[in-house]
Amino acid sequence: MILGAAVIQVELLKKKILAEGEVYEGNILKVDCFLNHQIDCVFLAEIGKEFHRLFENEGVNKILTIEASGIAIGAFVAQEFGCPLVFAKKTKTKNIAGDVYTTPVESFTHGTTYDIMVSKRFLGKGDRVLIIDDFLAVGNALKGLIELVKQSGAELAGCGTVIEKGYQHGGDSLREKGIKVESLAIIESMDAKTGEVTFRD
Amino acid sequence: MILGAAVIQVELLKKKILAEGEVYEGNILKVDCFLNHQIDCVFLAEIGKEFHRLFENEGVNKILTIEASGIAIGAFVAQEFGCPLVFAKKTKTKNIAGDVYTTPVESFTHGTTYDIMVSKRFLGKGDRVLIIDDFLAVGNALKGLIELVKQSGAELAGCGTVIEKGYQHGGDSLREKGIKVESLAIIESMDAKTGEVTFRD
Repeated sequence: MILGAAVIQVELLKKKILAEGEVYEGNILKVDCFLNHQIDCVFLAEIGKEFHRLFENEGVNKILTIEASGIAIGAFVAQEFGCPLVFAKKTKTKNIAGDVYTTPVESFTHGTTYDIMVSKRFLGKGDRVLIIDDFLAVGNALKGLIELVKQSGAELAGCGTVIEKGYQHGGDSLREKGIKVESLAIIESMDAKTGEVTFRD
Repeated sequence: MILGAAVIQVELLKKKILAEGEVYEGNILKVDCFLNHQIDCVFLAEIGKEFHRLFENEGVNKILTIEASGIAIGAFVAQEFGCPLVFAKKTKTKNIAGDVYTTPVESFTHGTTYDIMVSKRFLGKGDRVLIIDDFLAVGNALKGLIELVKQSGAELAGCGTVIEKGYQHGGDSLREKGIKVESLAIIESMDAKTGEVTFRD
């Protein structure tokens, strides 16, 4: 029964990507109609259940994500686990206060670097952290969030992302380090000319 | 029964503000331990139900909020209504593309002005919009969001905020214009020296 529901959620996600997603030149998959500008919250609540199923035996007691597009997904995952959500803030100005964990993140898409930060009050020893985000490509945002977890002395339970661009290998590189990374849909290739999207089996 | 639940939700919110909120000089109420940095999602899901109760007869078919701290609340409200959430993006650079609704918002707290924008694809005629945000003070963010609704040709169903600083009169000014504004906790006064917070009856 549970496996059946999981299959339905993942199949629905793939269907939504194929039906509503748009592929553009420059390796861009636009899913802002249901995932990161307009948000299908009934669907995301189901996605939250699936992440809960995937990580329910990992002792998770905190969800960590990054503003802005990770927040809604993270919120539904946190609701399932019955634990708090913390979102890392992006900033372009160096924060010199000693009350935050911070690390630079390089944006592969935009060719810029920004700092992310989390207040020391909300991450630390005793936390078993599940990192949640909408996209995983080269993995720079996830690596930044993992670095914040390390700085805080918390433990990393794993990473869950909705859509992984498998051909950019950020997910595989994290998995090779022994980190549990679960992506609900892994894209193997995209073609901006035809709009075709192929998933990893 | 429903009224009883509503009272419990609002009383719980007030208790959390008193127990976990911190008052600082410069009219600052910090509730980032449960509302806008670390987020108590089990609690926010209850808050979502209360906003649904307050607006369930208003024909709402879209929730509009603003990044970043409105997103989690908006997501739970949207889940209750079974409708999409759209979040307005903040940007410091003037967007000249014609595919967005945009308006400047003055930040009372920071003394700066930023533009907010929503893609034209996600707001328009036929939408009955409930605007949701975490805080209401002078009301500039809400006024900006209302302006985006107007530009789009959508109808405004009302505004719901978690915490209103009543003494800054942004909420009352919107109510005087005939807009339905519901805040779950309205603060009448705060004292940074004693940390005391007094609610409007």
